[in-house]
Amino acid sequence: MDEARIEELIAFHRDGLLNDTMPFWMRHTIDRNCGGFLNYLDADGSVYSTDKPVWVLGRLTWLTALLYNEVEKRPEWLETSRHGIEFLEKYCFDTEGRMFYEVTRDGQPLRKRRYLFTETFGVIALAEYARATGDKKRLQKARDLYRLILHHHRTPGLLPPKFIAQTREAKSHAMPMILIATSQQIRKADDDPLYNEVITDSIREILEHFVHPDRKALLETVGPDGEFIDTPAGRCVNPGHAIESAWFIMEEGRRRNDTAIIEKACQVLDWSLAWGWDEQYGGIRYFVDVAGKPCVQYEHDMKLWWPHCEALYATLLAHHLTGCPEYADWCEKIHEYSFSHFPDRDNGEWFKYLHRDGTVSHTIKGNAWAGPFHLPRMQLYCWKLLEEMLA
Amino acid sequence: MDEARIEELIAFHRDGLLNDTMPFWMRHTIDRNCGGFLNYLDADGSVYSTDKPVWVLGRLTWLTALLYNEVEKRPEWLETSRHGIEFLEKYCFDTEGRMFYEVTRDGQPLRKRRYLFTETFGVIALAEYARATGDKKRLQKARDLYRLILHHHRTPGLLPPKFIAQTREAKSHAMPMILIATSQQIRKADDDPLYNEVITDSIREILEHFVHPDRKALLETVGPDGEFIDTPAGRCVNPGHAIESAWFIMEEGRRRNDTAIIEKACQVLDWSLAWGWDEQYGGIRYFVDVAGKPCVQYEHDMKLWWPHCEALYATLLAHHLTGCPEYADWCEKIHEYSFSHFPDRDNGEWFKYLHRDGTVSHTIKGNAWAGPFHLPRMQLYCWKLLEEMLA
Repeated sequence: MDEARIEELIAFHRDGLLNDTMPFWMRHTIDRNCGGFLNYLDADGSVYSTDKPVWVLGRLTWLTALLYNEVEKRPEWLETSRHGIEFLEKYCFDTEGRMFYEVTRDGQPLRKRRYLFTETFGVIALAEYARATGDKKRLQKARDLYRLILHHHRTPGLLPPKFIAQTREAKSHAMPMILIATSQQIRKADDDPLYNEVITDSIREILEHFVHPDRKALLETVGPDGEFIDTPAGRCVNPGHAIESAWFIMEEGRRRNDTAIIEKACQVLDWSLAWGWDEQYGGIRYFVDVAGKPCVQYEHDMKLWWPHCEALYATLLAHHLTGCPEYADWCEKIHEYSFSHFPDRDNGEWFKYLHRDGTVSHTIKGNAWAGPFHLPRMQLYCWKLLEEMLA
Repeated sequence: MDEARIEELIAFHRDGLLNDTMPFWMRHTIDRNCGGFLNYLDADGSVYSTDKPVWVLGRLTWLTALLYNEVEKRPEWLETSRHGIEFLEKYCFDTEGRMFYEVTRDGQPLRKRRYLFTETFGVIALAEYARATGDKKRLQKARDLYRLILHHHRTPGLLPPKFIAQTREAKSHAMPMILIATSQQIRKADDDPLYNEVITDSIREILEHFVHPDRKALLETVGPDGEFIDTPAGRCVNPGHAIESAWFIMEEGRRRNDTAIIEKACQVLDWSLAWGWDEQYGGIRYFVDVAGKPCVQYEHDMKLWWPHCEALYATLLAHHLTGCPEYADWCEKIHEYSFSHFPDRDNGEWFKYLHRDGTVSHTIKGNAWAGPFHLPRMQLYCWKLLEEMLA
């Protein structure tokens, strides 16, 4: 990747973030009547449901504080983050400190879920906001919530399992993966050694239990000690998820100067790109069966926005850390596919869901999961990494 | 529909059922080692998971007994039904008489679910088997299970709601719909007036609460008194489901000589075909938003096998009951689409999932829901109705 191309990409991602992605959300998502964010937005930003998914509330609260911290002290970003924090604190926690998954427009609780992902987005929102403001009370809330997550995750029986555990014990890659990312975020605001310990343990769990070198895959679901489970769930590779995990681990290797884990993460990246890339239509498939058997998910062959965002940053980071030109080639190939298929030329931002053949299957910009997160995070992280590469 | 066409269709559906659909399943699904049925079958019948989804276990047990009762006293059909009954009884009930949703190959319980659909398929399996054999013990089990369903359905708080009920009370069309079908089945084996009462109440609930004439739609989710809920779930029309419900109601109208409910059911059929039919690619869409807003389901625009099966029978029955030629035209149009897109020319039976444009998205023949049910039921019911039309 030569200097001219790096400069071009810096401008491309920076302008995409600041002149396209963020303006779309800042214009449409803020609910000035009831607080919080309206995230069920159609292509043009019109609201198709006023329910408020809490994942996305936490994520935008985090993102706007992050932009304030890392890009520019724009008052509207800090104000938006505070707007999110206030709604989260007022309406999104139950009496035991756990979080709701979705609330109504005016903050009445709609749904609570078994797993702990909502809480992880609560932690990063509180921690990044505390970092922007020096607010010690919010930092303490982030710490408490982080510990609540660990407590529920580590105490057997506290979270009801999806399957009847006597028959089939299984664990999900999502949990150690999100613990790495959450710890990396809160660590920026707080220097407790606990965060590094959790990251170390989580990376070890991923590399020893979820990564199966004999199958050249990071599996999404394994037995309690990493055993292979020969069912569609046990054989499932989610290339985008594995790629995202890989760059969380690479970032840790970069920070710790640990080339061994960078190498292992790059191997996961290589395998996952090979599993995911669709030779016929281009783009990264959503799910693949590691034994070549059928996937059960309706959406298995669809092209979703977020695996492409994760792959853009992961390949750029791998190129930067290893110098391998293959990663730059992958990055360009994914760039070409992504920016020729996902952007909404009429309304800005990206379409989120494409059919396998690349045609748009849903016009929405946001739902319970899709929102201002993967795309702007990729744009910001690529921009900042490209600046480092230039320096 | 002239006599020659009726004769042609009789042969078409009869031969499809007896020489294609049933041989596929009889060859591949019966687990002679562990009992029960292997249903996770790929296109060629190869097994891609040995877990046993109990919906399908109940349904094939019912179907094979039904074929024995209504088509021919073939010993292998009765034997297959008994094979299903024995596995169901041995492994698929918990200590309180509720049923598991999925068990392992050797019958260890894997998952239990909130709702009561598995139990309804247990009822029809037991009742149809009892009808085939005169087995009073199995009939009593069917009765007890039927009452357990009613008890759980009618006792507030016994089933945990999906949403936090203080905030948003909602009910699903699936429940009154399946109560009609289940009652119609057990009634063939048992003459308790309870069944007619449940059917009457369920039809009333569907027509008064779920059917919204102002929106020309049967909605899948409404408030406790039929209130419209302005969210993606509340606006969702599942045309195939509405069409299936419509023919259950038409069958009841036919039995009771009640032309008023036949007319109402035909109206639901008309609306649902209009909502569902894809003018661009043909076929019936899976989900539609009644306000033209975006659907949230990944699979909203896919073409699934079962709505097409339901629509083939519903339009034929509507044509028979009303004499309207429009229904014969619809039936031919759906026939043309279905039989030019779904059949697997290499291995027999149908593909179950197509992309919006009609290309195959999954090669599987069975999973936790797909199996020997909608297609063979349609073939049998069309064949028998066509014979009535000819007579």
